[in-house]
Amino acid sequence: MKKPVVSINKTEISEAFKRIQDEICQGIEALDGAGIFIEDLWTRDEGGGGRTRVLSNGDLIEKGGVNFSAVHGPVSEAMNQQLGLDGNEFYATGVSIVLHPHNPFVPIIHMNIRYFEMDTGEYWFGGGIDLTPHYIVPVKAREFHQALKQVCDHHDSSFYPRFKKWADDYFFIPHRNETRGIGGVFYDHLHEGNSLSKQDLFNFSCDLGRSFVKIYTDQVDQRNKPYQENNLDWRNYRRGRYVEFNLVYDRGTTFGLKTGGRTESILMSLPVNASWIYNYQPSTAERDTILLLKKEIDWLDV
Amino acid sequence: MKKPVVSINKTEISEAFKRIQDEICQGIEALDGAGIFIEDLWTRDEGGGGRTRVLSNGDLIEKGGVNFSAVHGPVSEAMNQQLGLDGNEFYATGVSIVLHPHNPFVPIIHMNIRYFEMDTGEYWFGGGIDLTPHYIVPVKAREFHQALKQVCDHHDSSFYPRFKKWADDYFFIPHRNETRGIGGVFYDHLHEGNSLSKQDLFNFSCDLGRSFVKIYTDQVDQRNKPYQENNLDWRNYRRGRYVEFNLVYDRGTTFGLKTGGRTESILMSLPVNASWIYNYQPSTAERDTILLLKKEIDWLDV
Repeated sequence: MKKPVVSINKTEISEAFKRIQDEICQGIEALDGAGIFIEDLWTRDEGGGGRTRVLSNGDLIEKGGVNFSAVHGPVSEAMNQQLGLDGNEFYATGVSIVLHPHNPFVPIIHMNIRYFEMDTGEYWFGGGIDLTPHYIVPVKAREFHQALKQVCDHHDSSFYPRFKKWADDYFFIPHRNETRGIGGVFYDHLHEGNSLSKQDLFNFSCDLGRSFVKIYTDQVDQRNKPYQENNLDWRNYRRGRYVEFNLVYDRGTTFGLKTGGRTESILMSLPVNASWIYNYQPSTAERDTILLLKKEIDWLDV
Repeated sequence: MKKPVVSINKTEISEAFKRIQDEICQGIEALDGAGIFIEDLWTRDEGGGGRTRVLSNGDLIEKGGVNFSAVHGPVSEAMNQQLGLDGNEFYATGVSIVLHPHNPFVPIIHMNIRYFEMDTGEYWFGGGIDLTPHYIVPVKAREFHQALKQVCDHHDSSFYPRFKKWADDYFFIPHRNETRGIGGVFYDHLHEGNSLSKQDLFNFSCDLGRSFVKIYTDQVDQRNKPYQENNLDWRNYRRGRYVEFNLVYDRGTTFGLKTGGRTESILMSLPVNASWIYNYQPSTAERDTILLLKKEIDWLDV
């Protein structure tokens, strides 16, 4: 039996997520300095909808999406089977971000916070932030992981080590034997237990979301660094890997595309352009980055 | 009990496929006029290997691959389950082609012929040719389908209508509600029966393979047509759809990537570049093409 505590409900969670979307859009517009988000409101026939916001061709960001959605409706047989549940109605809400910068020396970033519940009473939180530098700079990677650890430690000292490993395993491209980037944190199916209440998990997800703008701001210090054609080629080649991960492995993307999600909102994560060169032979700087696309690097100690 | 007929064996099939790869490479080099194929020989730890040939930056072709492979080895539990068989050793051989031209007014083309057998005695042929024009020209689409019908009719009058429908269903992108292009023919799991012997099916597959160069030659008549920046943008945008199909739905690609196939050979099908624009608004010429990206168009009668 669950304890009869009045805990935060789905409407409050999705309202908080909306505010986080607003804050992040304002923060990214300020950081960019030129680009503005264009909003598309959409509804879903079976229930709910979303606010897709895309910034194109800014000063810093070439293409970026900050999406909010809150959808609900009847549970399909496939969904029950996949989740091992027996529900009739589900509710899912989240904020999802991918930013592709112009400058090859500025990393791609992804953030997602989400909440799911079933009318049977099961619920969970999921989310994460991960960074994909076209060129990995160890000192910046350390700063990134330190910042994530700080957000995590504020809530539970087990979070960072668990969620860092989870990100290594999740943001991995088996057919390339490469991680997508330097990882970050990833968590899923997080529900109350081990002295953490639903409210605690909600607070953690919100804190992670609210940390996003500051964390990315600290990563874009090279935004005005001059670059050459070969740096752009490499950026586009790495963007190809991003496309491979998202279309082949990313659960949100493949599940969304195959279950009738809004395609343009799901695929806002793809870059303006990407390239594939057969048997690409990287030069020295690029090889240094490839050597760091591995699991289990202790980025706090590089 | 199968009839004790001495029929063509796997070695003869793969040798014939190799010769077809050679013929096609020669034919495409002659058609291109400048580019040459670079060959990579590779072997597979569990058995077999292949000859990957890639032409880069030719006069006509920006990136094209003509691959041969013949692989064999122990059957995994997953493969038996997927095939509904109970084999110990499999053998698979085939030729696989994708050509991406420079000029937006020249179509992308794909061809594949393949043969599979299990040590339990089951075997089958599969294959197909399909065309993906960036701009669909109905009269050229009709010529393409007429040529395929002619190859098919030479073997069995039921082939073209069956395999044309199969291509419509296979080369389809559900999340876009679009076909990949104007289809063509596609067949799979074809084994003897209905008065067709194994030799007949082999002969059909070889004829289809040998028709490739002539069929594509007839489709590249616009190779010197001048184009503008917006035509290139549209080409790259359509290439994005090609990437989506191959990475999300194409069985050969997804199965290959997830079962340890040679990644660079599998992904030679991806274009040098591709682009994704949020909520792209096509102009008139592009809209005309989108309207024709539908199943069940009778291309013989357009």
